[in-house]
Amino acid sequence: MKVIVLGGDGFCGWPTALHLSNIGHEVIVVDNLSRRKIDIELEVDSLTPIQPMSVRLAAWKEVSGKDIRFIDLTIGKDYQELLDLIVTEKPDTIVHFAEQRAAPFSMKTSRHKRYTVDNNLNATNDVLAAIVESGLDIHLVHLGTMGVYGYGTAGMKIPEGYLTVTIDTPQGPVEQEILYPANPGSIYHMTKTQDALFFHFYNKNDGTKITDLHQGIVWGTQTTETRKDERLINRFDYDGDYGTVLNRFLMQAAIGHPLTVHGTGGQTRAFIHIQDTVRCIELAIENRPKDGDRVHIMNQMTETHRVRELADLISQMTSAEIANMPNPRNEADENDLHVENETFLSLGLNPITLEAGLMEEVTQIARKYADRCDRSKVPSVSYWNKDREAAQSANLKAVS
Amino acid sequence: MKVIVLGGDGFCGWPTALHLSNIGHEVIVVDNLSRRKIDIELEVDSLTPIQPMSVRLAAWKEVSGKDIRFIDLTIGKDYQELLDLIVTEKPDTIVHFAEQRAAPFSMKTSRHKRYTVDNNLNATNDVLAAIVESGLDIHLVHLGTMGVYGYGTAGMKIPEGYLTVTIDTPQGPVEQEILYPANPGSIYHMTKTQDALFFHFYNKNDGTKITDLHQGIVWGTQTTETRKDERLINRFDYDGDYGTVLNRFLMQAAIGHPLTVHGTGGQTRAFIHIQDTVRCIELAIENRPKDGDRVHIMNQMTETHRVRELADLISQMTSAEIANMPNPRNEADENDLHVENETFLSLGLNPITLEAGLMEEVTQIARKYADRCDRSKVPSVSYWNKDREAAQSANLKAVS
Repeated sequence: MKVIVLGGDGFCGWPTALHLSNIGHEVIVVDNLSRRKIDIELEVDSLTPIQPMSVRLAAWKEVSGKDIRFIDLTIGKDYQELLDLIVTEKPDTIVHFAEQRAAPFSMKTSRHKRYTVDNNLNATNDVLAAIVESGLDIHLVHLGTMGVYGYGTAGMKIPEGYLTVTIDTPQGPVEQEILYPANPGSIYHMTKTQDALFFHFYNKNDGTKITDLHQGIVWGTQTTETRKDERLINRFDYDGDYGTVLNRFLMQAAIGHPLTVHGTGGQTRAFIHIQDTVRCIELAIENRPKDGDRVHIMNQMTETHRVRELADLISQMTSAEIANMPNPRNEADENDLHVENETFLSLGLNPITLEAGLMEEVTQIARKYADRCDRSKVPSVSYWNKDREAAQSANLKAVS
Repeated sequence: MKVIVLGGDGFCGWPTALHLSNIGHEVIVVDNLSRRKIDIELEVDSLTPIQPMSVRLAAWKEVSGKDIRFIDLTIGKDYQELLDLIVTEKPDTIVHFAEQRAAPFSMKTSRHKRYTVDNNLNATNDVLAAIVESGLDIHLVHLGTMGVYGYGTAGMKIPEGYLTVTIDTPQGPVEQEILYPANPGSIYHMTKTQDALFFHFYNKNDGTKITDLHQGIVWGTQTTETRKDERLINRFDYDGDYGTVLNRFLMQAAIGHPLTVHGTGGQTRAFIHIQDTVRCIELAIENRPKDGDRVHIMNQMTETHRVRELADLISQMTSAEIANMPNPRNEADENDLHVENETFLSLGLNPITLEAGLMEEVTQIARKYADRCDRSKVPSVSYWNKDREAAQSANLKAVS
């Protein structure tokens, strides 16, 4: 199949492009290199020495004999170029990663809120409008997030996108299946709930075939393909904006800093290894919706953990200490999370567990590249609102 | 109170600005004149001879002795100017009409889809981000639409924004109040459902005070204030994109053309007179949410009618004939609609009925200005999707 990967230079996009190329798909990467440019703004680098796109592609050709083409354009702005590309290349599938994906970055200032909204919403609408305008039968696979779900419900498993509810009517109770009610926790997550409404509308009005993957926090750095040559290495973010909680713990352990747990660490999160992410994209591409299908929604996660359990796990592996800090996010200190993920398991996903895979991150990534770490970038410095910012400065004053 | 009216040059915005000024509020109008510029693109004019903003404001000063200030800037783009204005003027309330509001226009081509999404979503996010950044306690009153509601439910009245549902959980059934599940019928309506997610998030995260008005189709042209001088006259759109079904019937009757009913005319719509719209905005401004309130949502409509009933009513008043045509919209031919509108009635709204007010539209607007009508602009030429466009050309071929 021919696949266009939008955002194919990013943390999920790059290993996906390599994986799809490796298993025999024809791959075109589209990216405006915005993630690298945000690194410049934040004055931080990937811990791992990622290479420029031309070096990456040449290395892949050398290692695999396969070509991946690269086109630099901005999804959400360069509409005509996108449409021309689609009409010329006639892809079977478009994988859409072309969104700003860090919650703390989306909350930093008004400028960051505005960038995230403008970029993410125009990107998704442009891709959909171009698919419809092309008249081609293209399957759109979109990377969403577990963070679109809200309204915790008394021990209930979060279903895959749709929820059956009962509504009282004059004719008695009526059962209906609705999109799971959205309750996003950041501007970034909010844009993904707004994406869901784009998908719902274009699918209903134009019959567009769409798979929306509600992904947990991705951990791990390397995949089978990125391990083949150091020039193919994937990015590893450890800064307070783009670094996941797990990556920041790994770095803190590697540089001898206590693991900073926000609040009680009782927040429960869903996780998936990057190798399983690329496998899920492969499965989503293979399982194309049929004519007339509604939007396919799958939960793309393999296990859940509380933040303090992660800290304990890494502390056991590395002997790092644990320190509790005020939470910059506007969220509950403790939450439960039970997630349905039957679809991918039934399609053949065989998950890599944190227990089994985390030591590689400690030794092959965090320790190996520790000398590239800028320690000042590890703490989170984005606050969700004025109250959270005030709480943090009060704490710093009390400490000093 | 001091009120900034965003989009204060438009069909709802202009009479709202005058009404709020008349009852003693200090009013600042912000508009980029986009609605007039869209008239240029569509090669059509308001049936009524609307005047440039400077003439309007001078006439209002002459008639009322009151000043309304006007600022030309684009909400959603000129963020710093908007923020500076808010910080300098410290308004109590911002009324937000600054969105592209025609469903057919939003469906014409990819360009129109992209403009509507880019304009409406960035506008709403910019206003909210600027209110939060200003740190001021400002109440945002937003004009939404009845069109955000979907999923017709067996004779149930559509509630005001929130729906109580029962969810099955391992601990037994749990009742929860959720945002009414969205099921928009056009790109325009979709942006309003995405607006609802902006409101939900900013209200939750920053405590922003927001009233979202889910308005029916507005009919009528004049209000107490716009009648005071012909230079204050409100716009009347009759073209296939911006003209409401009622306005297009009125024009067809005035120029001796049969009333064109799309499909069976069994579509039920909610209506409200423009005089009641400005009164509702007044009531919304007076009934400011309290600290900690969730988003206030009110249904701003006063009666429902099937499209064929409207055609019959106007046919009786004018002796016009009725002609049925294929529907360019992707929608059901027949639908019921029952709407809760208790909040505004309880606050003192005393509605003008179609029965009582429609004759003025026939004689004082449609017939009076009939010589300004471009007959070629009345038919709808925007199609919801390829199937609807094909059905229309087949029909035209069959007729010719």
